Amino acid sequence: MIISLSRRILLICTILVVSVAWGQAPIFASTVSVPKIASTSSVVSSVKSAHTNVERWDFFELKLAGPVDGNPFTDVTLWATFMHGQRTVQATGFYDGDGIYKIRFMPEVGGEWRYETTSNRPELQGKTGIFTVTAASAGNHGPVRVRNTFHFAYADDTPFRQIGTTSYAWMHHGDVLQEQTLKTLATTPFNKLRMAIFPQRQNHPVSFPFAGTPPTKWDFTRFNPAYFRHVEQRIGQLRALGIEADIILFHPYDKGQWGFDRMPAEADDRYLRYVVARLAAYRNVWWSMANEFDFMTEKTAADWDRFFQIVQSSDPYDHLRSIHNGMTFYNQTQPWVTHASIQSGSAAEDFGRAAVFRDVYRKPIVFDEVKYEGNLPQRWGQLSAEEMVLRFWEGTIAGTYVGHSESYLDAKDGSTWLDKGGVLRGQSVARIAFLRKIMEEGPADGLDPIDPGIDYPFAGKRGTYYLAYFGRENHTTWPFALYKAELKDGMKFKVEVIDTWNMTITPVNDVFEVEKKDNYMFVDKEGRSVTLPDRPYMALRITRQP
Amino acid sequence: MIISLSRRILLICTILVVSVAWGQAPIFASTVSVPKIASTSSVVSSVKSAHTNVERWDFFELKLAGPVDGNPFTDVTLWATFMHGQRTVQATGFYDGDGIYKIRFMPEVGGEWRYETTSNRPELQGKTGIFTVTAASAGNHGPVRVRNTFHFAYADDTPFRQIGTTSYAWMHHGDVLQEQTLKTLATTPFNKLRMAIFPQRQNHPVSFPFAGTPPTKWDFTRFNPAYFRHVEQRIGQLRALGIEADIILFHPYDKGQWGFDRMPAEADDRYLRYVVARLAAYRNVWWSMANEFDFMTEKTAADWDRFFQIVQSSDPYDHLRSIHNGMTFYNQTQPWVTHASIQSGSAAEDFGRAAVFRDVYRKPIVFDEVKYEGNLPQRWGQLSAEEMVLRFWEGTIAGTYVGHSESYLDAKDGSTWLDKGGVLRGQSVARIAFLRKIMEEGPADGLDPIDPGIDYPFAGKRGTYYLAYFGRENHTTWPFALYKAELKDGMKFKVEVIDTWNMTITPVNDVFEVEKKDNYMFVDKEGRSVTLPDRPYMALRITRQP
Repeated sequence: MIISLSRRILLICTILVVSVAWGQAPIFASTVSVPKIASTSSVVSSVKSAHTNVERWDFFELKLAGPVDGNPFTDVTLWATFMHGQRTVQATGFYDGDGIYKIRFMPEVGGEWRYETTSNRPELQGKTGIFTVTAASAGNHGPVRVRNTFHFAYADDTPFRQIGTTSYAWMHHGDVLQEQTLKTLATTPFNKLRMAIFPQRQNHPVSFPFAGTPPTKWDFTRFNPAYFRHVEQRIGQLRALGIEADIILFHPYDKGQWGFDRMPAEADDRYLRYVVARLAAYRNVWWSMANEFDFMTEKTAADWDRFFQIVQSSDPYDHLRSIHNGMTFYNQTQPWVTHASIQSGSAAEDFGRAAVFRDVYRKPIVFDEVKYEGNLPQRWGQLSAEEMVLRFWEGTIAGTYVGHSESYLDAKDGSTWLDKGGVLRGQSVARIAFLRKIMEEGPADGLDPIDPGIDYPFAGKRGTYYLAYFGRENHTTWPFALYKAELKDGMKFKVEVIDTWNMTITPVNDVFEVEKKDNYMFVDKEGRSVTLPDRPYMALRITRQP
Repeated sequence: MIISLSRRILLICTILVVSVAWGQAPIFASTVSVPKIASTSSVVSSVKSAHTNVERWDFFELKLAGPVDGNPFTDVTLWATFMHGQRTVQATGFYDGDGIYKIRFMPEVGGEWRYETTSNRPELQGKTGIFTVTAASAGNHGPVRVRNTFHFAYADDTPFRQIGTTSYAWMHHGDVLQEQTLKTLATTPFNKLRMAIFPQRQNHPVSFPFAGTPPTKWDFTRFNPAYFRHVEQRIGQLRALGIEADIILFHPYDKGQWGFDRMPAEADDRYLRYVVARLAAYRNVWWSMANEFDFMTEKTAADWDRFFQIVQSSDPYDHLRSIHNGMTFYNQTQPWVTHASIQSGSAAEDFGRAAVFRDVYRKPIVFDEVKYEGNLPQRWGQLSAEEMVLRFWEGTIAGTYVGHSESYLDAKDGSTWLDKGGVLRGQSVARIAFLRKIMEEGPADGLDPIDPGIDYPFAGKRGTYYLAYFGRENHTTWPFALYKAELKDGMKFKVEVIDTWNMTITPVNDVFEVEKKDNYMFVDKEGRSVTLPDRPYMALRITRQP
């Protein structure tokens, strides 16, 4: 009765249906005049629907005016059901401040979609509309998914060969530096960036994720929408660069300075739901529960399980989910972990160590932290460029993926790429770009160990493509020999000698024809070898010829 | 009524309470005259209880005469509840043929115990008695348990440093050879033997586990008790030798020859329950669900989970449980897996690879199959003795455990130790015995990697004991340097140079006094080094001095 009455006296709000171009922050088709009503929860909107087109894997945004009384972040429930044929997707809305509520939706299937809202507030309840999802434009491949157990591909089946870097707090260091970081990224091979939502202790953020007063007087029940709009702007810019945003939801580098590492459980959970409601429609989002989760001593093992489950159940698009360790590994066999995000100081030094992670987890393995190229006194930050590149190659021939970062100290402010972004100074990036090109020329299904039973530094696709890497070893010759699987007498192969450090690819003139040698190996029929230049960091690319 | 009537006309059977001396097959105090009654299920026993003593962790055996009609294996339920103070343990009985039912119980606590039987057959129901559990005698340390996450200890806290070997079918090859195998084992360092309940395809067993006609006409609802009594005899003899029996419950080497690898699910489950009821009271039993489980293509992942759960819920003593892989690992993080039993052709070649298993599973790691010392054409059976010993050492400094076996072909019958037992011919066993002695002189808590973050071949107990191993590398000198953890300036250390192949331990005359060098390392105050003999397979033992 009260609702019926209040409905009659209501302001009319506008629903704006907005197609957000990929690679840009959301731009609204028109400005909404938001009524400020302080004392009543009975604002009801009538609908003025505008039919619009949305590109597949971009996002549709529904914008509704609603109540500002009480605490809109906690008092109002809102979601929309999006419908297309037999397919129904429920997307949760969020309060974006100033009386505005938004619901974002990333359509995964083209064609006409309908929606209808549900809310505990009548002014947000029952809004309906229709929009059309058009084909993805060039460069839009959709979200990244797991493919072939150990690998990744975009939703449109384009292989995604992970070549990541990390800059934890690049969003928390002033616009000039942030723009510089984006410019740097545009010139690098990196297709994934690990980045934290929360600032670190030593950062000087101009804005904070919650209402309240820094450093620690926060109202964890009220978010600061402007903070998250900034995050979204940066995610959108990464999307435009073709870079996946590997979003670190929690980290231990606050140490109580801001207190975001030690919020009560209900604040943690509310934060996760709010972040997922805001960001999940960005196709380039990956969820990383935490960096060095085990260093967050305020959290328990059950907390991390719960965080995964909240993110999984809140995200309509099932974006990739991981958690990154310090010293102690999370149980990566849990079903809600889509891929293993591993820190190890020594595993990616040796393909045999790296491959163990594949064997035990049966998921894609990303060595997101293998120490960093740099000049820090800490041993995690003093890799030579050669050693960083070696880790990328060892990881690659193990059938796993590796991440880069850099810890050269900036002379002026004592910061590093790892921390703040900015410019890259190291020598590994060019070699990693060279590797990426080789990976992209390789099999679409990804590189798998050719003979995982033994100490055999060859990955590829049996019978057609082999990539060998000899690491720190110097060789003058390689007697042509391949593991038997998928081989037959008479098959012909071309060999290229790759200097992974000097970035050269030298074809060998001979074409090698294989014949069975014994129970395990095929060799060149004429017993030929390949000459190698007696230097470290050499690789071979061996491809089947017609 | 019928029961009351039949009770009056009954033969009197005797309950024999037997203390089984450890290290011997069960010997009954007297022979039971078993009435053969073919047509009635109403045989009822009256009780003649004899108070007896049982050693802690040996077993108490209750022997009851009962029905022989129908199918005693499937028709009769029987268990006893054993009670001591607030402690109650339920042990399941089993039919041992010829009208005899047995219930075995391994007491884990000393003092007076009472028992009472429960059965669906009146003649087996409600039997009660009392016995006393005395202290364990010398050499009886109880069952092996997990200790300190990554290690093992007997129930009496004596460390158990796993040094295993494998002879799959030694019980299925004639008494002469079996006695020879036991004699061989008595002279070796091995404290665990992997062995299969079921024969392999190429074996010629004189007896089979089920009633029926070989090769494949079995009545899976009826066991052959004599077959299992033989298994028990051998387990008892291993117990006497201080050797754990790592019992392989299923294996893929039948290939349908006998059909024990492809029984229906209800036969699998009944078999597991029967085996556990018979064998669990042997303190030296470990349960291995299978060898190369993933090669048993008739079974599903859910089957293996169920087998673990059946064994876990049936075994009152919670003996160690594992499962051994071929190419694909079982999810060893499952809670019913007590330790990881791993096959890997390359992991134990490098401590860094081996240690990954510790890090991901957080359980004791036993590399039960690292290829074998031998001369087979198959690459899994052609390790040199040097390479076998290297794997033991690399595994040891990774904080893991390694298993041996041998595959030298017997000239006469083409068999190997791995298959049939008999004698050992290889050169690794003496070196493994040498390693065992070193392990036994080491810290009781087990050896853990000293600095797991990096490529550092030192295990031990920080601050007091360090064991380094240089594998295939030749060094002429080792500059004294230890990772900082638990070190303080002024601590003094003794160094011994160990030649793991030539089995020599050479003390270094100097006493080294450490001082902090940098953020990570302590070095000798006077900058001294240790001279090494420029050979492979060298190790160092470094121990704190007062």
